[in-house]
Parts: sequence; structure tokens; C-alpha cells
Amino acid sequence: MGNKNSGNEKDSWVTYRPKIKVCDCTIRDGGLINDHCYDDKFVKAVYDTLVVAGINYMEIGYKSSKKLFAPDQFGNWKFCDEDDMRRIIGENKTDLKICAMADTGRTDYHTDILPKKQSVLDTIRVACYIHQVPTALDIVKDVVDKGYEATMQLMAISVVQDKELSDGLELIAKSPVSAVFLVDSFGALYSEQVRKLVKKYLKVLEGTGKEVGVHCHNNQQLAYANTIEALILGATRLDATINGLGRGAGNCPLELLVGFLKNPRFKLRPIIECIEKEMLPLKAQLDWGHSIPYMITGQLNCHPREAIKLRKSQEKDSYLKFYDEMME
Amino acid sequence: MGNKNSGNEKDSWVTYRPKIKVCDCTIRDGGLINDHCYDDKFVKAVYDTLVVAGINYMEIGYKSSKKLFAPDQFGNWKFCDEDDMRRIIGENKTDLKICAMADTGRTDYHTDILPKKQSVLDTIRVACYIHQVPTALDIVKDVVDKGYEATMQLMAISVVQDKELSDGLELIAKSPVSAVFLVDSFGALYSEQVRKLVKKYLKVLEGTGKEVGVHCHNNQQLAYANTIEALILGATRLDATINGLGRGAGNCPLELLVGFLKNPRFKLRPIIECIEKEMLPLKAQLDWGHSIPYMITGQLNCHPREAIKLRKSQEKDSYLKFYDEMME
Repeated sequence: MGNKNSGNEKDSWVTYRPKIKVCDCTIRDGGLINDHCYDDKFVKAVYDTLVVAGINYMEIGYKSSKKLFAPDQFGNWKFCDEDDMRRIIGENKTDLKICAMADTGRTDYHTDILPKKQSVLDTIRVACYIHQVPTALDIVKDVVDKGYEATMQLMAISVVQDKELSDGLELIAKSPVSAVFLVDSFGALYSEQVRKLVKKYLKVLEGTGKEVGVHCHNNQQLAYANTIEALILGATRLDATINGLGRGAGNCPLELLVGFLKNPRFKLRPIIECIEKEMLPLKAQLDWGHSIPYMITGQLNCHPREAIKLRKSQEKDSYLKFYDEMME
Repeated sequence: MGNKNSGNEKDSWVTYRPKIKVCDCTIRDGGLINDHCYDDKFVKAVYDTLVVAGINYMEIGYKSSKKLFAPDQFGNWKFCDEDDMRRIIGENKTDLKICAMADTGRTDYHTDILPKKQSVLDTIRVACYIHQVPTALDIVKDVVDKGYEATMQLMAISVVQDKELSDGLELIAKSPVSAVFLVDSFGALYSEQVRKLVKKYLKVLEGTGKEVGVHCHNNQQLAYANTIEALILGATRLDATINGLGRGAGNCPLELLVGFLKNPRFKLRPIIECIEKEMLPLKAQLDWGHSIPYMITGQLNCHPREAIKLRKSQEKDSYLKFYDEMME
């Protein structure tokens, strides 16, 4: 029946690789839909779900610059102040590691990211575009010096040229990050491309001890499929969100991924409970997940911003007009 | 960039295989949601869309036994009488071939399937479970003798043992079908399993001139991903439905598939127009597509009937209760 959870031909589908770690990005990526205004009850429900479900990491939000983003215009999870996090998770005496994203060019990391001892955060996920790699590596150095685990989220990989990607990965390979994530920001990649990219990442990072991760968007209903393709080839850090909550077409649904993983630490039931209790009511308020406009931007390998604009407008279902505009 | 449309390493993703043919099953598979009661206007809209979109086949419904199924309990597309079909498609002077499904054990094929010369149908798609292969092959013989193309839809393949599948495929390989379809009725297969099965089908059918086809359901959001995996490995007959309309979690969405295929004969625009004009209003009346109950039956590799029952009930969103019942 194949070797679903493994890169090893000898394994069977009932085995699993203990190294595989799942990061839930529900609050962080989902925050892009509502300016990070989730209330405490919702964030606590997600946290409690992830603890019981045995998920390895929770990405709770961004460490964004308050000079660039006025705090009164955004919810708490744009900034992840310690007081706000502790109000939800206390001292987090659980196995679940907490991370926040530092978005290159939008974070005052030197001042806003505290020394690890003063924070409930375990990991800083540094996001950057290919041209920002040197700046991103300065964030990595800063946060590793402060005592955090750092990972690198190289975004919009579907529009990066091969030579530039090689150069960028070579630089990152020399940095103290623990993992490098292949981020399909536009939901544009097909499985063949994911396989090629994962192999490339693994090759460049070989011998460094760094892991390969994957973060997919669901524009073409391929987020989950591409995530499991990546893991079969050797990626060990997998991003997902509960019910796929996330910007635009959303992310790899955590419930699908956990249904696939065979490690007994992962539990599906609490995630299903959270979907019924928390996500269904939210669906009535917020628009996320696969729809035709997001499919179109994914197929065109471009940023979903035009589709997001459409979906927020009165013309949210004017698919044909949108298609014609995008094809111009 | 990989070789998206091809099984040939030398091809690039901008090439395509002219042999690939797409069959739209919107009216047939979609008929399982509403007892085949689509009105003429809707069926005509789908037909017109497929003609303009360059799709190769339209599956318009079933040739079901009127002894087993009372005609006053079902819509026209359960039976596909010639008069009903001609009311929509006339003599069908187009490139689009018309097919109907003959479901083994539920069709009076000897009497109800007319000689080809008297019918607007081009192809009979014979559906069967593994234990019905001999009966199905009798239908195949009958309809080929009458002048039709016949294809074999071997259903519920995810619960068929390897040895039985080999035996069944050997029998089918000797029959006059033009194609054998791998049918993932439960939406349970992962890409690794699809790859293994497609290779097996291709091997058994090697040298017979028969094509391999694929028909996927979207319980785990893998219908499209698995369809393109199959085509990359050499499947050339691909089933899909507009907006994924179909039983339970629905099918591989035609709009995603056509967005992937590079043959200039296929056009995406008319499909998007049909979704906006026809499918969006239908969404308000009928429930189809991925949802948590269908995910659960897919993950458990079982028939979606319990999930269908739930989705039709007042408790359609009682995910946790359903999960607990299914796990018992």
C-alpha cells in the first residue's frame, strides 16, 4: 500500500517518522483575514486544541513594528506582546512550542523581540522574499543570539528563478536556522514542482542538520496534496491550519494532515471538535478557503491580492468578470 | 519546471499530450445528489459549456432499469431515453461525444440500450465492483456488438485486494473496452497509492491499445491532485465535473483540470461562466463538496453513505458526534 509517511521504500504505510513536526499557523495566517483581531476566547480554544491534539508548534502571530503598523488599527496578534500571549497561555507549561513570525522589513526585531528568558515564545519564524535574505539572516542572528530557535520561511517560491534560489539557499545553509521552509505563497505549485524543490532544498542543506519544511496555500486545492508529497520526499516540518483558516484560499487543513500522519501523538478528535465549535461560527463572518477567484490567481502564479479584494467586495461572485480582468 | 502534462521526462511543462481526453460527469455523478432531477435548462447549459470548452466526453446520466427504479421517482437522467437526450442535444452535431453509465446489476442493457444507429450516445461506461466483472463484461460485449465504444469503471478500488484486482484486470484486458478507469469511489486514495495502481493498470493493459482512466472523489481534497498524478504517469482518460458537482464530497473540479492541461482545445472561460451562472444558484439548493463528514469517511476508506445521510439531516454540522459514531 505504499509508504505514506516515509521516504524509505522499506517502510510501510502503517509506520511513521517520529521526526515529523507539525506547526499550526491558524492564528498567524488566519490573522491576515481580519487584521489579527481574534478574541481571547478563540485564541485560547485553538491553543487548547493544539495541546490536546499533540501538535508540535503554534504560531500565534507576528512580531510587527509598531512604528509601521498603528496598534489601534490591528488586533493583538499583529504584535504578540508578552502580556497578551500570557493572558492566553500563561507560562505555557505544555509540550506545545509557541512561535511568532518576524516579517523581514516589517519588524523592529532588535527592540521588540525580547531575550528568550523574558518570553513565552520558543521559536521565531523569519519570513522573507528572496531579495531580503541578507536582512532576514540578520534577524536570524539576532534572535538566535537571544536564545530562540529560528526558522526561515522563504516566500513566493513559485516566482523565484533557479539560480537565485540556489544562491539564497547557500547563504541560509550557513546560518543558524534549524529549518528552511518552502513557502508556496501563491498556491501555484504542482506536485512535480514541489518534488523538485524539496529535493533541491534537501541537497543544499545536506549535512547541516537543518530540516526542510513546507507551507502551502490552497488556491488549486493542492495544499494538502503538496504537503504530503513534500513529507514523503523528506520534509519534516509541516505547516497547517485548523479548517484551512488563512489568507485567501487558506492553508493545508490540519485535520487532513493529522488524519494522514500515523504518529500516535497526534489526535484528530479535538481538531474536529474545534472546527464544529469555533470554525463554523467564524465561517459566517469571514471568507476563506478555495474559491474560483483564488483558483485563477493560483493558476496564473500571482499574488492573491486581486482575488482578496474581489472577495471583500459586493461582486465577490463575479467570477467571469474577474477572469477577464486577470487575463488582460 | 517539471513535465506536468506528460509521462516523458524530455517534455517540458509547456507541452501537452494530445491523447489526453477529458470526460465531464457533471450530470451523471451530480445526479446522485438529486435523484437525477436536473431540468432541461441546466443540462443544456452544461452541454453548451462542454462543447465550447472543447471537452471530449459528456456523461449525461445512467441507463437504469425501469423495473428496478420507478420512473416517476427519478428524473430523466436516471434513464437517458433518446427523446429526453435529443430534446437537449438534438442530433449532437459537435465534437463532444455523449456517454451514459450502465451500472452492473441495475440496467436492462439488452433491451434498454438501443443499437448505436438509433442513439445519440457514443459511449457506454460500464460501472462494476470487482465481483461483478464477469457480468460487466457481458454488458461490454452487448454494447460493443451494438456499435458503441465501451469503457470499464472499476469502482471502490481502494478496498480491492491486490490479487483480485490483478485477476479482474486480466479479464478486462481481453475484452473490447477502449479504456479501464481507476475509480476512487470513497475518495480514500493517497497519491502514492494512485501511482502504484496506475502503474499496475498500465502494465496489465500494455500492448492491448486500451487506455487507463481515472475518476476521483474529493473527500480528502485529493481528487484533482490524484487526477494529475495519474495523468503524469500515463493515464489518458480523465474524469471531472464542473465545480466538482457530484455525490458527497464531489469530484475532480473540471476548472482545475482544464487550468492545468495545456492542449489549446480546452478553454477555461466557458467553464467559469457556467460556474457563476449555473453552479452558484445550485449551491443554495444542494449540498456537495468537501466537508468534515466526507473527510472522515474518506480517511476511514469507507462508503460515504453515512456522511451523505448526515449532510441531509438537521444535524449536518454535528461533526464530533459523527466522528465518534464512525470510530465506534
